Amino acid sequence: MSRVTIAPEEDRLTAQIAFAVEIDKLKRVIRRNLLMDGSRRENDAEHSWYVGMLALVFAEHAPPGADIQRVIAMLLVHDLVEIDAGDTFIYDPVAVAAQAQAERTAAERIFALLPADQAASMRELWEEFEARETPEARFAKALDRFAPILANHNTEGGTWPLFRVTASQVKEKVRLIEEGSPSLGAYAMELVELSVARGHLSE
Amino acid sequence: MSRVTIAPEEDRLTAQIAFAVEIDKLKRVIRRNLLMDGSRRENDAEHSWYVGMLALVFAEHAPPGADIQRVIAMLLVHDLVEIDAGDTFIYDPVAVAAQAQAERTAAERIFALLPADQAASMRELWEEFEARETPEARFAKALDRFAPILANHNTEGGTWPLFRVTASQVKEKVRLIEEGSPSLGAYAMELVELSVARGHLSE
Repeated sequence: MSRVTIAPEEDRLTAQIAFAVEIDKLKRVIRRNLLMDGSRRENDAEHSWYVGMLALVFAEHAPPGADIQRVIAMLLVHDLVEIDAGDTFIYDPVAVAAQAQAERTAAERIFALLPADQAASMRELWEEFEARETPEARFAKALDRFAPILANHNTEGGTWPLFRVTASQVKEKVRLIEEGSPSLGAYAMELVELSVARGHLSE
Repeated sequence: MSRVTIAPEEDRLTAQIAFAVEIDKLKRVIRRNLLMDGSRRENDAEHSWYVGMLALVFAEHAPPGADIQRVIAMLLVHDLVEIDAGDTFIYDPVAVAAQAQAERTAAERIFALLPADQAASMRELWEEFEARETPEARFAKALDRFAPILANHNTEGGTWPLFRVTASQVKEKVRLIEEGSPSLGAYAMELVELSVARGHLSE
């Protein structure tokens, strides 16, 4: 007897596989900042791994009671919308404004590849990250901002001089770090000051 | 009054930062398999992100009761030792045997950059993954083996013909997938058969 209907669980697996194939593209979305040896620009997938690792490493710098596992899940998915919307340079205010709608459209398409329940919960993680209202999202965003500062500090300014970014612009981003983690914010501020003192970041 | 001792919490942060700087190197460890568009070989950092995402996506295919958060943490750290030991081609038995000691030496150095408590718990995650005795480790290893099969299947055989890998060799790896997830194992076996039928993998 031939099968005439697809078993629901087979349907789910097919959808999950389609999503798994799709998200491989995140490895080809290129960010502005460099690897710590300055050899090349970083892609979104390796960046997402890196900030997930930072959540494990700096867990004790999270707001009290923050669920680190949720922070990690949030960081793994936080850039998926860039498969369609591309990476935005955070120091370009025009691009940042246009990006919001593009990311929303991307979220509609990409998460919808999953079975409906998973699409909803993954989209929820992304929206929570973007809204930055929960302690988890604030900490996740802090790590997302901390990573490029650490990288630029370790590559003689990295992309700061290249894109004429100033210390006051970077310090504005440090404020987002402070809101998610006072101790990492203070440390980031030290790195910025040190980069200025060394001539790797202009005032 | 000048400070003569380093506050313990400052010491911890310094160690965590040193580790964070070190692990950036994982982005430069290149694996055998290709991205799903065949454009280039994959690095360990983006691979680690990818399998972490697979854990989220395929959570319902894990052994009953497996802690998915622990699976994800395990997958984020599972390749860190390759910063020193390099990636090993899993179809090269001589290299695989030599690799075990190199990875152990790497683990000694890399995890020890962290404060002792964190070094111990991260090393534990890695050893649990390698031992493949817990349901979490078995599922993590299944995903680690599933990813390249999915990639090769989607790139007309990808690195299989390139490195003269045969279907029976791949099927041996599929057995590891089955042990961590019968449903993903069955699906991987279908992909292997399909790749053979299409002439992308030799018998």
